[in-house]
Order: sequence, then C-alpha cells, then structure tokens
Amino acid sequence: MQLTVYLAGEIHSNWREEIKTKAEERKLSLTFVSPQTNHDRSDNVGEDILGKQPGSLYKDDAASDINNFRTQVLMQKSDIVIALFGEKYKQWNTAMDASTAIAMNKPTIIIRPESLIHPLKELSNKANVTVESVDQALDVIGYIYE
Amino acid sequence: MQLTVYLAGEIHSNWREEIKTKAEERKLSLTFVSPQTNHDRSDNVGEDILGKQPGSLYKDDAASDINNFRTQVLMQKSDIVIALFGEKYKQWNTAMDASTAIAMNKPTIIIRPESLIHPLKELSNKANVTVESVDQALDVIGYIYE
Amino acid sequence: MQLTVYLAGEIHSNWREEIKTKAEERKLSLTFVSPQTNHDRSDNVGEDILGKQPGSLYKDDAASDINNFRTQVLMQKSDIVIALFGEKYKQWNTAMDASTAIAMNKPTIIIRPESLIHPLKELSNKANVTVESVDQALDVIGYIYE
Amino acid sequence: MQLTVYLAGEIHSNWREEIKTKAEERKLSLTFVSPQTNHDRSDNVGEDILGKQPGSLYKDDAASDINNFRTQVLMQKSDIVIALFGEKYKQWNTAMDASTAIAMNKPTIIIRPESLIHPLKELSNKANVTVESVDQALDVIGYIYE
Amino acid sequence: MQLTVYLAGEIHSNWREEIKTKAEERKLSLTFVSPQTNHDRSDNVGEDILGKQPGSLYKDDAASDINNFRTQVLMQKSDIVIALFGEKYKQWNTAMDASTAIAMNKPTIIIRPESLIHPLKELSNKANVTVESVDQALDVIGYIYE
Amino acid sequence: MQLTVYLAGEIHSNWREEIKTKAEERKLSLTFVSPQTNHDRSDNVGEDILGKQPGSLYKDDAASDINNFRTQVLMQKSDIVIALFGEKYKQWNTAMDASTAIAMNKPTIIIRPESLIHPLKELSNKANVTVESVDQALDVIGYIYE
Amino acid sequence: MQLTVYLAGEIHSNWREEIKTKAEERKLSLTFVSPQTNHDRSDNVGEDILGKQPGSLYKDDAASDINNFRTQVLMQKSDIVIALFGEKYKQWNTAMDASTAIAMNKPTIIIRPESLIHPLKELSNKANVTVESVDQALDVIGYIYE
Amino acid sequence: MQLTVYLAGEIHSNWREEIKTKAEERKLSLTFVSPQTNHDRSDNVGEDILGKQPGSLYKDDAASDINNFRTQVLMQKSDIVIALFGEKYKQWNTAMDASTAIAMNKPTIIIRPESLIHPLKELSNKANVTVESVDQALDVIGYIYE
Repeated sequence: MQLTVYLAGEIHSNWREEIKTKAEERKLSLTFVSPQTNHDRSDNVGEDILGKQPGSLYKDDAASDINNFRTQVLMQKSDIVIALFGEKYKQWNTAMDASTAIAMNKPTIIIRPESLIHPLKELSNKANVTVESVDQALDVIGYIYE
Repeated sequence: MQLTVYLAGEIHSNWREEIKTKAEERKLSLTFVSPQTNHDRSDNVGEDILGKQPGSLYKDDAASDINNFRTQVLMQKSDIVIALFGEKYKQWNTAMDASTAIAMNKPTIIIRPESLIHPLKELSNKANVTVESVDQALDVIGYIYE
Repeated sequence: MQLTVYLAGEIHSNWREEIKTKAEERKLSLTFVSPQTNHDRSDNVGEDILGKQPGSLYKDDAASDINNFRTQVLMQKSDIVIALFGEKYKQWNTAMDASTAIAMNKPTIIIRPESLIHPLKELSNKANVTVESVDQALDVIGYIYE
Repeated sequence: MQLTVYLAGEIHSNWREEIKTKAEERKLSLTFVSPQTNHDRSDNVGEDILGKQPGSLYKDDAASDINNFRTQVLMQKSDIVIALFGEKYKQWNTAMDASTAIAMNKPTIIIRPESLIHPLKELSNKANVTVESVDQALDVIGYIYE
Repeated sequence: MQLTVYLAGEIHSNWREEIKTKAEERKLSLTFVSPQTNHDRSDNVGEDILGKQPGSLYKDDAASDINNFRTQVLMQKSDIVIALFGEKYKQWNTAMDASTAIAMNKPTIIIRPESLIHPLKELSNKANVTVESVDQALDVIGYIYE
Repeated sequence: MQLTVYLAGEIHSNWREEIKTKAEERKLSLTFVSPQTNHDRSDNVGEDILGKQPGSLYKDDAASDINNFRTQVLMQKSDIVIALFGEKYKQWNTAMDASTAIAMNKPTIIIRPESLIHPLKELSNKANVTVESVDQALDVIGYIYE
Repeated sequence: MQLTVYLAGEIHSNWREEIKTKAEERKLSLTFVSPQTNHDRSDNVGEDILGKQPGSLYKDDAASDINNFRTQVLMQKSDIVIALFGEKYKQWNTAMDASTAIAMNKPTIIIRPESLIHPLKELSNKANVTVESVDQALDVIGYIYE
Repeated sequence: MQLTVYLAGEIHSNWREEIKTKAEERKLSLTFVSPQTNHDRSDNVGEDILGKQPGSLYKDDAASDINNFRTQVLMQKSDIVIALFGEKYKQWNTAMDASTAIAMNKPTIIIRPESLIHPLKELSNKANVTVESVDQALDVIGYIYE
C-alpha cells in the first residue's frame, strides 16, 4: 500500500532529506510532499509571480496566497501528516498545518524536542502521536506495514 | 504527482488551448477538464437531447440540466479549479463555478483583468489566488512542483 | 416556526424594505438579515477599520475581508437565502452568495427579471425556485406556512 | 441577533475584560466564552482532577485533555472566533485554535501587533480578517449589526 | 425536550390529524411539520405562483420547485421523520423523503401496512424502525421520553 | 477519463445490457455497476447466506441487509448514478437509490416513460437530468466527453 | 450556558441519579439525557410495541431498532457525552455509544475503574478525558464554567 | 473492481489467514488490511518506539497512540469493514472499530457466535449485515461481484 506523507514544519534544517533517505533504506512505500523549503523563494513567491507589492504586509500576503494554495493541494492528496517543530522560530505555520490536518481527520505525527513539551502540550494531545526524532516517526509509520 | 484542473469561465476566447500548450511546454503533469466550449452546442444541448422545448426559458432550463450535470461530474474529479473572467458578458456561470469550488474546498485560482478588480473583490478575496494572466496561473500551479 | 432569511443581491434599490414590509403585512414569522446596503460604507469599510491602504486593489481587498466575514456569519444563521439580480451591474457577489448558499444546502430562491433568463440559466437551474418579483418570493415562503 | 464569540489566545493580559467592557459600551448583543485564563489552574487542572502524575510530560498531557475538552465544547457553541497573538510566548495554542476554527468554517478574526505580520502571514491569510487592536475587532463585529 | 417531527407521506387520508391529536393526548412535547396536504394546491402551486406553464410537464416541474423548497426547509428543522405509506398510489415522494432523511442522519420511522412489507423491504431495512400504525409510531417516539 | 456508473432501477427488463452495448459502440470509457438483477437471487440471498428465516418479513429483512450492503459499496465507488423507472411495480428501491445518490451529491440521471411524469415530478426536479430513453441517458454522459 | 449531556453506559447501578444530584448541588446548568435504564423495558420494547417476535434474535433486533432510534435522537441533541464502564457485563453498547460520539465530534468523557485501563486503552485514547469517578467527570464539566 | 477490506477484531485466532485463503480460492479481488495481530507487539509498541513509560497506564496510552494511528490510516483506505467478535475477552476495540466504521459510512459486516446475539444486539442492528462465520462474510462480499 502506497501512502502519501505531507512533511509540515521547519524549513531551516535538512530533516526532510533525512526522512526520505531513511524511508528508502527501510523500503517503506511512501511518497513525500512538502511546503516550499527554499525560504527566500517562499517569502518572495508573491512578488515573483504577482509583481512588486507596496510594502512588506502586502508582499507577505501575496506570498501567503500562493503558499496556502500549495499546502491545500498537497495536504488534500496526503494520507498522513508529519509536523516537525524545532527549537527556534515561531513556527505558527507548523502549528497551523498540524491543526488543519487534525481537523481534516488526517492521521498526524508531531516531532518536537523535549524542551517544547510544555508549549506544545495541547496540540500534542490532539495529534495521534508525538515523538522526538525522525527515526521514531518512521517507526510509527513503519508499524502500519508490519 | 498528476493533478486534474477544471478550467471554468469564458468560452469566447482560446485561453484553454493556451493554458494546455503552455503547461506542456513547462512539462507540468496536469490533466485539464472544462465545460462545453462550443457555445451553440452548450445553448442547444437541452433541445438536442430532450427535443424541442416550448420557449426559450424551457430550452435554457433543459440545457442547464445537462451543463450542470457535466460540471458536477468534472469538478468532483478535479484537484484544482481555475476560473477566468474576461471583460465582456455577465459570466455568472464563472462566478457560480468559482464559488462552488471554494465551498467544496477545491483550491481555486481566479484570472481577471485589472479592470475587474472592483466588481470581483469579494470573490477574489475568497479564492486562494487571483492573477491577471494564464502565465501567472501556471506559475502558481508550477510552484507546487518546485 | 420562526425562519431567518438572508437577502443577497442588489443594494441599489429598496427591495429589502419592500420585502420586509410585505412579509409583515402577510404576518409571516420571518427575520431578515442582509449584507451592508450602504454602498459607500461597504466599499470603504476596509479603510474605515484598518486604515488607509496603498491603492484601490488593497482598499478593495480590505473591504472584502470584512464584507465576507459579515456574510459568512449571517448566512450560517439563515434558514433560507433569497438572491435578487437586477438589470444593471455585474453582480458577481449575488452569484457568489447564491452559489455558496446552494453548496451549503440552504434552500435558495432567485429573483430576476425576464431579461436575465439566459445568462442566469445554470444558476437558476441549481437554485430551488426562480421568480420575477418580491411578491412571488414571499408567495413561495408563505407556502411553507400554509 | 445574539452571537457567541470564542476568545482564543493570550492569557497573560486582560484583553478579554477589555473586549467585554467595550462590547457592552457599544451595546452589541454578544456572549463571550474563553479558555481557562488562570494560567496556574490551566497548567494544573490535570493533576487537580486526575491526581499526581509521574512527571511533567504526563502532568501536561492530563491538563491538555481537559483544556482541549473545554475548548471543543465552547468553540462548537460559538458563531465567531477571535484569536489574539501577543509579542511574547510561543502561543501555539492560539495558532491551533485559530486554525481549527477556520477548518470548522467559523468566521475568524486575528488580532496581532505589527511586529508579527511576517511570522503569522499564512494564518492571517486564511482567517477572515486580521486587525491590530481589540477596538478594530469590535468594529468588525459591530459591522454585522449595522 | 421539545422535538420537531416531519410527517412525510400519504396526503389522501387524515393520519396527520390523528397523530397530532394522539400526541397531545399523550402529552408528548412534539411540533409537527408536513408537506402541503391539499393535493390540488400542491399540484397547482407552480402555476399559482409562477403563472401558466406550457404543458403538464412544465406545470409539474414548477410545482416541484416549490414543494421541494418547502420540504427542504422543514426537514432541515426536524429532529425526527415519520414516513407513512398507504396501499394506493406510487408514493415515490414518500420514498424520496424517507431516503433523504436517512441520508441526512435524521432518525426515521416508516409506517406501512403488512401488504407492503416486500416492496418496501430495503427502505425499511435502512430506516430506524418500521411499524404498522400511527399508535406504534407514537409508542416509539414516546419511548424517548420514558 | 474513466467514469463508474451505477445503474439503479428496474430489474425485469434488459436495459442494463442495452446501455452497456451502446456505451461500447460509442466508445465511452464507462464502467457499469448494478444491484443484483437476478430477482430470485435478490429475494433469497438472505436465506441463501444466513439460513431459513421464520417468515417472509424476516426473510425479506435478511435479504435487504445484503442488498443494501451491496448497493452502499458500489454507489460509493460510482461517479454517476442512472435510475430507470418502468411502468410496472412499486419501484421504491429505485426511488430510494436515486434519492440517496442525490443526497450524496452523486450526479444523477432519471430515465422514465412519459406516463410517469406526474408521480415522479419532485424526484425528477431534484435529479440533474430526466430523460425518456437509454439513448438519451448516454447522450447526456457522452456530452461530458465532447 | 446551558449544556445537554448524554449519559451512556451501565444501567445496573444508579450513577445517573448520582450525577444529576451532584450537578444540582454544584449548580451546573446541565440537562441530562440517557438511554432507557429500565433493563426489562429496554429488552422488551421491541415486542412491547411491534408484537411477539419468532425467537430471541428477532426480539433483540426489534428492541434494538427502537433503542438505537432513541439514542440517535438524544445524542444528536447533546453537547457532551459521558460513557461509564463498570466491572461487569460486556457493555458493547457503551463502547458503541462512546465511539459514535467521538466520530460525531461530540466532546466525550469516559468513566472507568482502574481495573479496566488495559482493555479500554484505545478507546480512552480517542476520548477527550478518562476519569475514575462521577465526581471527576463533573469536575471536568464544571471546569467549562470556571 | 478491487476492494480493500479492513479486518477488525479478535487477534487470538487465525481467522484473518482463513479469510485471505478463502478469498483467494474464490478469486475475489480483495486487499485485506488489519490491526497489529502480534499481541505482544501491539501492547509494547508504545514503549518500543517512545521508550520506557512510568507505569502501565502510561505504557498502554503510548501503545494506543500508535495503534489508533495505524487503524485510522488503514480504515480510511478501506471500502468495507469486517469486525469479528469471539467468545472471550472484552473486545472493546472491536466494538470501537465497528462503530467508527459505521459512523464513517463504511459498509460493515459483523461476525459473531450465536452466544453473543444479545450483548451485541444494538451494534448488529446498526451494522449492514451480521453473520456467524468467515464463510458467510465472504458470501456477502462475493455477492457484490455476482
């Protein structure tokens, strides 16, 4: 059974590459999809496509139109969502994607460091499973195939 | 990832051919579906299939039965909806298709000329993205594959 | 049985006052809700609340945020939607509201002049009933109470 | 028309009292509901009701069970959600509540300071309206009653 | 607890009066709503409101617009649906209303004579309860209040 | 685009064979699914699988369990529903299947002879299209592929 | 805010009376609804209303029609579900009601003795909160009103 | 037509192997998916992946997170659910899975021995079909392909 997995969250580390490589090593039949992980492209895509905007609020809003479009298309195509929270940044998009996935009844795994247990407690509680590493997330998905 | 795109809107210009050609040039994995674009066939299909009706209201209603059937089948099969508004005509079908797509949670792009910003402002606001050209619409969809 | 009716459509004539007065004369237990019918206020509400915007597109988008918020609140509270199309203007909001109502399974009545039969044919076909006057719309609603 | 408003977000300032007082001054027919705003009670409610837990992760999870129960009951009863983001704290619950509200089709207003435009851009883009103050949020809701 | 009950089905006998009288005798807190039970009015309502139609098919379709509008409004307001099948007539409306109610998750009771067991077997199987008399239907509803 | 079509209705004539043959002649990419069309098997399947039942009501109910199971599986897999009404029999299953399909938002075509216009008027009004022959139904579906 | 609470589960103890009395003592604005708690009436209601059945399977099925009807009406009217598991009996109805409530997004509390932790672990995990006593369940609901 | 069948229920007998073998013998185009049937692995998977927990309640809850994740993924992918109840054990997971499947509109078959008729009567009544053996369940599914 082929499953599609949306990888929400931090775009400043290479965890998506890590999860893809490890999933292949485990021979799991997974297709991974993601948000735009090139930060500059993600921030600029509104102006790149729609042209110069009259200020940063408008530039941000134009980019968000297109980033949200991408996420909506890909999340609707997914069977599972993994959301990774790192220690830095506000990461409200990650919380938004995880919450939206849960509200859409998408089975959802959160990856977060121990230091974030407290601020993420209500969201962890609503997700199916919360783990601390990419390996554990793949253990959870691999369990489906046992 | 293969995506199906419903092309709602104006049937008096060749924008659908343009978008298909350009999508192929960009090597995007898209399948396009559309309403009936032969205007006469679209207007007459009710009488063509069900026989002569007793007046134009009844002829129109018979055609609409079949046009709405077609749209419902194809829109349910689609992952994305693009709705193009031109400068002429009332185009209430385009507004209807875009609004229905949004209510069905289909990711939706509106293409409209600058002159229509004001009358389309509430609908643009509900759609994911509003652009002014077929190229920009393909930029937005192409962004999914980056 | 008290029913709430959302009155979508044209804001340049006084049909909403007419329908309220006539509903009272018929002693129908109806509560009416509407979009903002003061055209200037509707166009300016974005800048009125959020402050000066850097151009008409942004002014329009800010107003639409708030107009769409209002419509969403009131339409969710409604049992019935009436959408009136006049002969002038593009009226895409009216088509949007009627289409959204239909997609939400709200029982929907369209009022339109005979001259608009053809351009509105697909939308009329999806609505429950299409009539040509406020009196007929109230006849339809009054029929519920017979 | 009486409307119920869920006030998500920051519990370290008195903005909920402010909004209630100002709504009364404006004579808006609003009922406000909220999460637990006593921070200690919110953190301890799991142990308060279920007894001592074997560590902070388990204490947090027990509290989250009950906080999420409360939010689910009250948000389902609400017609409108307002989510306020302040400058401090991670506030992932606020992002979670706003995202859940949007996914449930609850009309949603975000209040956030200018400094948070960038990190909240995708969530703001999905909400109906984003404003910077309690007064503006009430302006938006007051507009429903005009 | 006040419950609203939609009474679908046969309009050629006085079973609705019987059920209302008996519900009052039992002091059940029920509000009853129904389709138009004046057969002539039901058949003619399209022409009564919309004017003369060009033939019986069109007259029937105009009446159906308005009858279906009424049913949709009232069934959405109901907590329970009772559908009564008599021995005569095709009664496809009754089957339609019962099936629609079941698909909408409305708790549904069918009343039918023993002679109709076989032709109604699949519909009875999908309804919650099938009985043979108005008294039994009220026994079932009365059981809620025990 | 391959579409799956559920063929509800009369099992005493060979219209399903006719529609399959004609669809092949027209080279339409359709997969057809149907209820059990062997009438005896359909009536006896409950006892065939579950064993002798204590009377005809129970035999009918056991058969209905299994017939409804089959219909639910196949209708959920279908993109389009065609429901054919003939002149004989009560055909409440046909009305049930068509009504259920409409409530599930399945695009629906009714085929019925002219003699049944009046008793089927409300159901026809809710379906997308009503025609009088298998050929017309295929004309409607063929129109999707034009 | 008045809330309606469905009390699923064990009917062999008086926990429902206990919870009602204690809710009154705490002055919580709760309306409680329940399944039929008279065990004999619950088992016999099918024969009581529909007449003698030809064996215990049929008697049970007739009773279940009516018990499931009652539960469906009352659970749809409820804002919260509490499901209590005792140490005896199979209690599959309790598991069914709790699971159905969760699938309907009803906020759900499970009450079970410590001895049942293991067999109920997956269901507890899906419910909002699991407690061991009626008092704790009321603590959880009371927390909404703090 | 390829169908996916989720096999809920008892993991202490080899009924899943039996059903797979017999389905192959009958040449039915079925793909079977299941919960984890290795009881120890199912009980320990929480600690296996997340590490040692501080007591059996926490060990059970960690395992349930992952077992429920697996079930949710696989049940959403299924067209049909079969739930088998044996004579031993509490089997609340089986009741939970069957009830969830029914609430999700998954066509559902229950297999249970005659001795369990009474305690399972309400759940049997809500399922599509209840049988006593694996062979009968395959008879029911095989009927789809006749």
